[in-house]
Amino acid sequence: MDAYKTLREEAFEANLEIKKQNLAIYTWGNVSAFDPGNGVFAIKPSGVPYDELRPESMVLVDLTGKVIESKLKPSSDTKTHQVLYREFAGIKGITHTHSPYAVAWAQAKKPVPVYGTTHADHGTEEVPCTEFMSPEAVKNDYELETGNLIVESFKKNNYNPSHMNMVLVAGHGPFTWGSSAAQSVYHGAVLEEVCKMALLTLRLDPLAKPLPGHIIKKHWERKHGPDAYYGQQ
Amino acid sequence: MDAYKTLREEAFEANLEIKKQNLAIYTWGNVSAFDPGNGVFAIKPSGVPYDELRPESMVLVDLTGKVIESKLKPSSDTKTHQVLYREFAGIKGITHTHSPYAVAWAQAKKPVPVYGTTHADHGTEEVPCTEFMSPEAVKNDYELETGNLIVESFKKNNYNPSHMNMVLVAGHGPFTWGSSAAQSVYHGAVLEEVCKMALLTLRLDPLAKPLPGHIIKKHWERKHGPDAYYGQQ
Amino acid sequence: MDAYKTLREEAFEANLEIKKQNLAIYTWGNVSAFDPGNGVFAIKPSGVPYDELRPESMVLVDLTGKVIESKLKPSSDTKTHQVLYREFAGIKGITHTHSPYAVAWAQAKKPVPVYGTTHADHGTEEVPCTEFMSPEAVKNDYELETGNLIVESFKKNNYNPSHMNMVLVAGHGPFTWGSSAAQSVYHGAVLEEVCKMALLTLRLDPLAKPLPGHIIKKHWERKHGPDAYYGQQ
Amino acid sequence: MDAYKTLREEAFEANLEIKKQNLAIYTWGNVSAFDPGNGVFAIKPSGVPYDELRPESMVLVDLTGKVIESKLKPSSDTKTHQVLYREFAGIKGITHTHSPYAVAWAQAKKPVPVYGTTHADHGTEEVPCTEFMSPEAVKNDYELETGNLIVESFKKNNYNPSHMNMVLVAGHGPFTWGSSAAQSVYHGAVLEEVCKMALLTLRLDPLAKPLPGHIIKKHWERKHGPDAYYGQQ
Repeated sequence: MDAYKTLREEAFEANLEIKKQNLAIYTWGNVSAFDPGNGVFAIKPSGVPYDELRPESMVLVDLTGKVIESKLKPSSDTKTHQVLYREFAGIKGITHTHSPYAVAWAQAKKPVPVYGTTHADHGTEEVPCTEFMSPEAVKNDYELETGNLIVESFKKNNYNPSHMNMVLVAGHGPFTWGSSAAQSVYHGAVLEEVCKMALLTLRLDPLAKPLPGHIIKKHWERKHGPDAYYGQQ
Repeated sequence: MDAYKTLREEAFEANLEIKKQNLAIYTWGNVSAFDPGNGVFAIKPSGVPYDELRPESMVLVDLTGKVIESKLKPSSDTKTHQVLYREFAGIKGITHTHSPYAVAWAQAKKPVPVYGTTHADHGTEEVPCTEFMSPEAVKNDYELETGNLIVESFKKNNYNPSHMNMVLVAGHGPFTWGSSAAQSVYHGAVLEEVCKMALLTLRLDPLAKPLPGHIIKKHWERKHGPDAYYGQQ
Repeated sequence: MDAYKTLREEAFEANLEIKKQNLAIYTWGNVSAFDPGNGVFAIKPSGVPYDELRPESMVLVDLTGKVIESKLKPSSDTKTHQVLYREFAGIKGITHTHSPYAVAWAQAKKPVPVYGTTHADHGTEEVPCTEFMSPEAVKNDYELETGNLIVESFKKNNYNPSHMNMVLVAGHGPFTWGSSAAQSVYHGAVLEEVCKMALLTLRLDPLAKPLPGHIIKKHWERKHGPDAYYGQQ
Repeated sequence: MDAYKTLREEAFEANLEIKKQNLAIYTWGNVSAFDPGNGVFAIKPSGVPYDELRPESMVLVDLTGKVIESKLKPSSDTKTHQVLYREFAGIKGITHTHSPYAVAWAQAKKPVPVYGTTHADHGTEEVPCTEFMSPEAVKNDYELETGNLIVESFKKNNYNPSHMNMVLVAGHGPFTWGSSAAQSVYHGAVLEEVCKMALLTLRLDPLAKPLPGHIIKKHWERKHGPDAYYGQQ
């Protein structure tokens, strides 16, 4: 399995980052790292505490859901990751947590408006919230259908998953992604902070209005536009 | 007392976990570990700071409330533990804390609705809240009657203590239990997190609705049903 | 100054406890320890960061406000401590902080109702909030008059400072006391936690009712009554 | 560059303090230190994580925005700092963060009323909130115009930047300053705590009134007036 040593290490490090960023208690989160060339991702094993994880315990899974050389079972959310890697071209890491402010928005079944530049630095649109899953879909294949719900939500909103890298699954919690496993955890932390700020904003003004569009656009473009000038590149 | 060495160590470790999970300040919490074969439980001594606890300081008590070989007085809540071990067959650990979000729901005297999957992963019903204790019961035997209040609340709701392992005592705070002392603290941490998420959900939508029943059922069953597939078993 | 070595050490340790219990950022708090036999208290020097404090830097002050053998100026709140030691017989330690939940109640100028047993374990009455100080009193001697405001508030409420060891100064923040400097900090931490729980309770039910009187009484008496049975005494 | 060794070290230490005071996650904050004699300030490089910073990585910039001897790009907010150093005589340090309570007030576009002495100890007026920037200004030079927005807000309010050392940029977040880089971070922490206390106060009383003027004045003057008596000077 040497071929996937780096992938496993990347997934391992990113899973530990969930704890460092306080995004979940106990084992309530999981991260995967994707190798698009081989169509394989490394994901946290199911129910194993973060402090017992080793790079070797990351489970390799292909895009059909087949586990490659592992005695451990992958995260129970594996099929959701699988759908997103198949449907959202270009993403190379996915994070799922139960961070409390993001969960609150998911439980209230509300998209998160762009109230400020913290949000706009990472996305120009509301963070979408899916519909509840139908009884039929639950019966069929719950985790796979969770992935489908997310994909549908992006189609309905006409969102580009390279530009909006966060979603709330209604009644459940956040999934975030990015160009690496590490970046997907970063987006998980961003979403939690943005959800906290948005909730506090509504406490001060229940009729708070979104940031004007020209400021949203400016903040996105200074970090992600063709003439981005944030950072050292 | 070598016979109970393991039981004392289990109770000791679980009491320290209260601090690690930030479920109480000072000495505002206690955990016991139960040995059903001998009908004996080990519980925190009353009013002793967590950092002065040793495995040897755990007090052994039988189901009639008799203290076995100890110079220390057991927790003032001992009789509540005693009633629950007698009435709730199969539980082997109990935790009581004053964690602030759970206390807030107890002080508001409201059961906690199932707003999301974090809750449903651990129980399919509202976390119940007891009635206030009558003046007569307070006069009779306060801590024993606290246990009775909890048992009554479960009977009234027709709850199975193996499926619902949490309760709020009105105006007081949470008691949680489980298949071990460690699991009872875990349920204490779950309850605090669920209470926080539920309060934040109501801040976003005062009329928030519970998670649809078919999703609640699915989440419970994937962890606890006959075909559970979460974790490594 | 060897005569006051223990008093200074007690005050020093209690001031550090403010940080450990997260009751103030920077230097926003002070504790004093009182020796009633000599009518002298040791208090934090004004504006000195906690991590630069030494037992020797504690300033000794007598009940007329005279500083005894120190090159450092005592806390700007010294006269408030002085009034309380003179007026509230039996107290041997005082703590003042700007802990945020207690400050919020003080800024809202509201006494804190007894919503639960966490409160009742430490006092049977609402935590009182003073009036605002008059322009004349501010001009006269602000810190001394702060002490007078507190004393008036206790007279008006007919409160016994041995039973109610906490107060909110309107628009300012909490003062707490006890039978030692350490216990006064403990009461500062209790008040912050009780204020947080009470605020969260009102978020769940804006019309929340206080705990029934017979339960308040029971909780107080099991810890502080003639037949108290909490702890190891 | 030895001439600026101390300036760089001061900026470096102050940037680390952002993390210690929990005022930003990741790289969401920056501090600069100003040398008025040479008209040069040292500022955090753009997008570099705090734990990779060294004193040498601080970027020197003059008041025309010219970078002096550095391979790293300065913070994307550099021009905002530049405008403030030019317009606000006497300030020698500036801090910008995305601390969540301050951001919430900025997103609600509300000035922060003086609800208590914690606020009055640091300023006698509401913390102002700017207007949103116009589309033209955004197009022109966003970060420079952010500085202009702040300066306009101070002119409109007739505020003295030596007395009011904090501002909220609407929809964005806080900028604070002071007589040193370290003091500007201190004011960032004060603002976050004051914003938290003010929000909690409004939760307890949506119609909360500001502290009476004579108490505001007293608290300011005991720390900053001609007869100030707080601290050891």
